[in-house]
Amino acid sequence: MAEIDTILHQPVRLRIMAALTVLPDNAQMEFVALRNLLRTTDGNLGAHLHKLENAGYISVEKAFVSRKPRTFISVTAKGRSAFDNYVQTLQEILGPIVHSPEQG
Amino acid sequence: MAEIDTILHQPVRLRIMAALTVLPDNAQMEFVALRNLLRTTDGNLGAHLHKLENAGYISVEKAFVSRKPRTFISVTAKGRSAFDNYVQTLQEILGPIVHSPEQG
Repeated sequence: MAEIDTILHQPVRLRIMAALTVLPDNAQMEFVALRNLLRTTDGNLGAHLHKLENAGYISVEKAFVSRKPRTFISVTAKGRSAFDNYVQTLQEILGPIVHSPEQG
Repeated sequence: MAEIDTILHQPVRLRIMAALTVLPDNAQMEFVALRNLLRTTDGNLGAHLHKLENAGYISVEKAFVSRKPRTFISVTAKGRSAFDNYVQTLQEILGPIVHSPEQG
């Protein structure tokens, strides 16, 4: 029985990875844009990004733009692969329901 | 942004509910069968069933069969509804990936 990746299974981290993995390869998302999308706080987002970065799932780059510090985040190949595996595991568990939703 | 139901989001409880919700209405599953399916221990399964029962998501009945105590578990209407909502929330988050898996 496939294990659920607990790094990805946390709701905020799951939303971060879902947002990043739909971007094209090597595309980056700004910290502020991600925070607004997730409607969370700087501190909360920062903590979850730190955990994802430590797992090697995302890459975090800081740069100065017009003399202001900005943070850019992108998913790594390892993160993309882990996310694909996570979705596959969920589909194995939820399969019958996910594939035949009761829709009107 | 829809919240993820943290009672259902725990991996063992998610597997319990996935197993119970594919059964026909009012069908029951035995404790031992569920424990074997999930490859977990009596104590672990018992604790998670307790949490699901407290939330009103499952119904637990004890009965004697050939003088031996046995435990039967079924999902409630509330549990089925909560599970459907949970799956829908996940699909909203994972939508683009779930609907177009990269398959060979």
